[in-house]
Amino acid sequence: MNKNSLVEEFIAVLRKAPKVALFSHVSPDGDCLGSMLAIGLALEKIGKEVSFYNPNSVPGNLVFLPGASRISQQLPDPQPETLMFVDCTDLGRVSLSMSDISKDTMVLNLDHHISNQYFGHVNWVDSRASAVGELALILINLLGVEIDRDIATNLYTAIVTDSGCFQYSNTTAQTHRLAAELMDKDINISNIHHSLFDQKPLSQIKLLQYALNGLELYAEGQLALMTLSLEDFQKSGAGQELSEGLVNHARSIAGVEVAVLLKEVGPLEIKGGLRSNLWLNVNEIAAQFGGGGHNRAAGCTFRVPIAEAKQSIITVIEEALKVGRNH
Amino acid sequence: MNKNSLVEEFIAVLRKAPKVALFSHVSPDGDCLGSMLAIGLALEKIGKEVSFYNPNSVPGNLVFLPGASRISQQLPDPQPETLMFVDCTDLGRVSLSMSDISKDTMVLNLDHHISNQYFGHVNWVDSRASAVGELALILINLLGVEIDRDIATNLYTAIVTDSGCFQYSNTTAQTHRLAAELMDKDINISNIHHSLFDQKPLSQIKLLQYALNGLELYAEGQLALMTLSLEDFQKSGAGQELSEGLVNHARSIAGVEVAVLLKEVGPLEIKGGLRSNLWLNVNEIAAQFGGGGHNRAAGCTFRVPIAEAKQSIITVIEEALKVGRNH
Repeated sequence: MNKNSLVEEFIAVLRKAPKVALFSHVSPDGDCLGSMLAIGLALEKIGKEVSFYNPNSVPGNLVFLPGASRISQQLPDPQPETLMFVDCTDLGRVSLSMSDISKDTMVLNLDHHISNQYFGHVNWVDSRASAVGELALILINLLGVEIDRDIATNLYTAIVTDSGCFQYSNTTAQTHRLAAELMDKDINISNIHHSLFDQKPLSQIKLLQYALNGLELYAEGQLALMTLSLEDFQKSGAGQELSEGLVNHARSIAGVEVAVLLKEVGPLEIKGGLRSNLWLNVNEIAAQFGGGGHNRAAGCTFRVPIAEAKQSIITVIEEALKVGRNH
Repeated sequence: MNKNSLVEEFIAVLRKAPKVALFSHVSPDGDCLGSMLAIGLALEKIGKEVSFYNPNSVPGNLVFLPGASRISQQLPDPQPETLMFVDCTDLGRVSLSMSDISKDTMVLNLDHHISNQYFGHVNWVDSRASAVGELALILINLLGVEIDRDIATNLYTAIVTDSGCFQYSNTTAQTHRLAAELMDKDINISNIHHSLFDQKPLSQIKLLQYALNGLELYAEGQLALMTLSLEDFQKSGAGQELSEGLVNHARSIAGVEVAVLLKEVGPLEIKGGLRSNLWLNVNEIAAQFGGGGHNRAAGCTFRVPIAEAKQSIITVIEEALKVGRNH
């Protein structure tokens, strides 16, 4: 089926359905929740009965999304005849399997992941979209529903989340054109960005401070390493999860190819987070310590004192950088 | 004169001029340099002789801008009959005064600062533009010059810089429409963002470290203040320009409405950078100290010791926060 007739069929199914249950993935983010809410609010404007499901609770920085309080952690019961999955590569992403879905149920699959499993009866999957939010906006326009401020706020949040504020390489001219269409609806982007990104606990800033105080460069400036001790976490008052992303400060230094954050999460338990910029495969580095991940982002755990973990990873990375240079 | 005829006159002056000298402000950023270069490259495409001036050298993260190597720290000699100032509120921003400008010279002023002094013979000042880059793109389109990849790279950098990657409240639907137009020219936004943001000198990271070490909260956590002394700059090895953006780390703390970075640039010369999140007008705060800027981002200079500057600005901001709360 060609793209246009597929989208037409997708729309036709929605037009016919009196009730639609919407699903979004575990560890929810702004794209899956914002897109799901926007579509649901739009469907309600044309008289559909809508329910919203997510396996987890809504993260604190997303409770501002219009309609967020309506998202349920209970599966819809009874199950309506039309289900729509948003931003899910497969049913496992909502902790479901095909056996959970009643016979004769119509399954719609709206996604932008290249790894999508085409598990639906109608699958609108477009990996050129930076966010499902782009597809959701096109969908709502095709339904003929006027975008209001609430819908626009949800869609803008979706697009901003998955395009990395229009910075990731998945951002296209279309992404900006759709963002412009949403901004015409008088959304307050200051409030959205503030809600999404500017609610850092002071303890997180202190953790950054301690991480920077321990920053060291090796391998002629190609390796930047930071450490956070148990004491640093205690002094800052920050939990482990707040160290997320700190390693990017080390990665952003000119000349650095690989950045490492070693954090002491317990006595003789050191977690290493690795990021590379252009060529070093940190998945392979992490694998040498029993860890793994992706080529540019990986992690591993050391069961030794932090000083020993540090020396081990420096040695391995220096060697990898040397081999890489000689290629 | 109404807006349209003003813009028409601006274009008419450029069409008539055989030679144009372009000027951009001290402590150059991506907006003033990107806009200046884009306009200059466009003027050359319609046969004009162009020179580019900036009082300072091009910052390391902006040397990638197409044409950047042509920017001179020498004033054009002889001075052509048409001068164009880009992103400058007044001539002081290029370390010049009216007496430096020959009689009979036509001065064009293209800016987006609300505090612009209308010092030119034709002043195209539009404070609704997130960046001068927006006005520069409109100008180039009106000149009828086709936007090529080099011009688009300069303009995209300009817009990204002053709109804070489309996150600042000055971003509008137009900002996104213009960005889309630039992305149609096949620019490489990954390379641009990597050049702009991921090539930080180590000294800049050290400056962040020192700024965080001096972070203090006031007004029940609504005001976050950081200071950088001359000694901090010396120890880090960073120039003044590398403190750009540091204030946002303070601004991003939960509960903070206004963030201030005070930096000692010389004995009894303290520069204040102010940012607000949701409602406080920092342009008005800065104006009380002889400075200015925008509602959510402004600056001012104090000719007192840093401790005194700090106390003054804390007092004024605490008062403004109190008044605001009572409204």
